[in-house]
Amino acid sequence: MYKAHITVTLRPSILDPQGKAAHHALGELGFSSVQSVRIGKFIELDVDAASAAEAKTVAENACKQLLANAVMEDFHVEIQSV
Amino acid sequence: MYKAHITVTLRPSILDPQGKAAHHALGELGFSSVQSVRIGKFIELDVDAASAAEAKTVAENACKQLLANAVMEDFHVEIQSV
Repeated sequence: MYKAHITVTLRPSILDPQGKAAHHALGELGFSSVQSVRIGKFIELDVDAASAAEAKTVAENACKQLLANAVMEDFHVEIQSV
Repeated sequence: MYKAHITVTLRPSILDPQGKAAHHALGELGFSSVQSVRIGKFIELDVDAASAAEAKTVAENACKQLLANAVMEDFHVEIQSV
């Protein structure tokens, strides 16, 4: 069994209103050293696969077909054996 | 300048309907090897700090005060120099 840790982030050219709102709120709370906030998704999959390479392929295909929007988002997959 | 990569995940005892829905949809798409899906947030902060330790403190305080809900969520902070 493998765990896939996936981060899905908006591409740099895409506006991130949720991040902008969090940045503004942090400013109001006194966090003046925070220069920028971007918010994406973190997805944890448990994958039953014969090897880490196979688990990575499954996770990448899941991102392409469902979990990420290729037009607006990038994704990054890390595999851990459990 | 430091980048803080923050993952905010639901505590294991908290139900994750978004993850359940994604798990079901992956099953419909033929991803039978995926046993479980949990969905959280991935947050990237740019922090202007004198040291990595200071940047980590800023990011952890931002999580405690705004970005994570301590009752239902756990968070993990990683700092990178940029």
